[in-house]
Amino acid sequence: MVQVVFIGFGNVNSHLIHAFLKARNIHIKQIFSRNASNFSSAINTIPVTSLITEIMDADIYIIGIPDDSISEFSNQMLIKNKLVVHTSGSLAMKSLSNNNRKGVFYPLQTFSKDREVAFSEIPILIEAENASDFKLLEDLGRKITKKVVPATSEERLKIHCAAVFVNNFVNHLYQIGSDILKEENLSFDLLKPLITETAEKILTMEPMKAQTGPALRNDSGTIEKHLHLLKKSRHKQLYELFTKEIGADYGKKL
Amino acid sequence: MVQVVFIGFGNVNSHLIHAFLKARNIHIKQIFSRNASNFSSAINTIPVTSLITEIMDADIYIIGIPDDSISEFSNQMLIKNKLVVHTSGSLAMKSLSNNNRKGVFYPLQTFSKDREVAFSEIPILIEAENASDFKLLEDLGRKITKKVVPATSEERLKIHCAAVFVNNFVNHLYQIGSDILKEENLSFDLLKPLITETAEKILTMEPMKAQTGPALRNDSGTIEKHLHLLKKSRHKQLYELFTKEIGADYGKKL
Repeated sequence: MVQVVFIGFGNVNSHLIHAFLKARNIHIKQIFSRNASNFSSAINTIPVTSLITEIMDADIYIIGIPDDSISEFSNQMLIKNKLVVHTSGSLAMKSLSNNNRKGVFYPLQTFSKDREVAFSEIPILIEAENASDFKLLEDLGRKITKKVVPATSEERLKIHCAAVFVNNFVNHLYQIGSDILKEENLSFDLLKPLITETAEKILTMEPMKAQTGPALRNDSGTIEKHLHLLKKSRHKQLYELFTKEIGADYGKKL
Repeated sequence: MVQVVFIGFGNVNSHLIHAFLKARNIHIKQIFSRNASNFSSAINTIPVTSLITEIMDADIYIIGIPDDSISEFSNQMLIKNKLVVHTSGSLAMKSLSNNNRKGVFYPLQTFSKDREVAFSEIPILIEAENASDFKLLEDLGRKITKKVVPATSEERLKIHCAAVFVNNFVNHLYQIGSDILKEENLSFDLLKPLITETAEKILTMEPMKAQTGPALRNDSGTIEKHLHLLKKSRHKQLYELFTKEIGADYGKKL
């Protein structure tokens, strides 16, 4: 039975806790949180503390708090020589305090409150200072997903950056699509089958091969019409930049 | 039994033909194509011509050729007073020849060769000059989808422009994500669960509420690290633009 203490109750830790509650041979011993009011009933059975002096003994401590607080918090913890991991995509493992053995346990997914996520396909990127801690994290990850992936801090940062492009920036394009339709009182629902198909397509096709549209065809008539109707200069700017880039990529392919 | 002649055999018409072959009470009388070599066996039973003089009599003619050829081609057709529609997202209905009754039958989806698409959820935007032709297109659309949507040429152009953002530009972001991982010899597969979840999320959440990430949190440490590792200036430029825009949007929401 692996004993785990969670430090923080943000989106990542909250989803990890729910996944671990369904897994075998994991004992969530305690949650350290300064904000316990929004716990779900499933979690209410787990002891909670908001005092750093009351953090219990465990095999693994999983820190899920804002990146810029992790280093300082890990130095304030009173425990020594334990395995302490963080769950950040962009923070180097070495940022953790030297008081304990360091590791990373980063689930590569976007987590929102009130939205359940199936962990079994989610890659969890792990890193540790020594082989036995690596094995511990690997075993822990395998309890909730088929995809435990070793990654150095440098690799993880790159993957996190790529994730920002395909998640945050993609979501912002959905936002723009929604804005353009709203100007005409049209429903965003119209775009949903297209959004679904666009994402499904690249599960089996390379993005370069999946590309279609006016920029790829160098269809200047359509491009001009679109630029003319876009009301916001920031939408125009993104449209022009993407059109140039898609054209350049396709030019290289020929 | 509605009799249909297809003009052109690009991605859109090819997918429409396959969908109509499975529907009831539609007779695909003929395909006009100058390139009949790539027909699938299902389509081999339909008469084909490459001569404009041999185009047969039918109820509806569906033109699926490049936008900038549609007007000229519709003027070269020898038929008169028939319902001739195009399948373009951005071309005005009035671009069609005055020799015939005009209409538009635009399926809002991305079509690739060798990838089957389920039509039943795809919006088909229709437009016609008169009520009886509109009814004819509405009935035709309903044979393959639940979502037949009236749209003027202006509305359709706007929707098409929004579609370019959520399809072509999104796909280009997938491409960039893939490029960044390739530089580290990492597999694009790592990002696929995230891409799937990002698209699924907005089926039930507004894009603004679904947003997460360093730009939203104004996490300048992570943003700096990402900008530092991006090797291509065009990736940096997009990263900066999106980060600014997401920050601005969220600022407005507060």
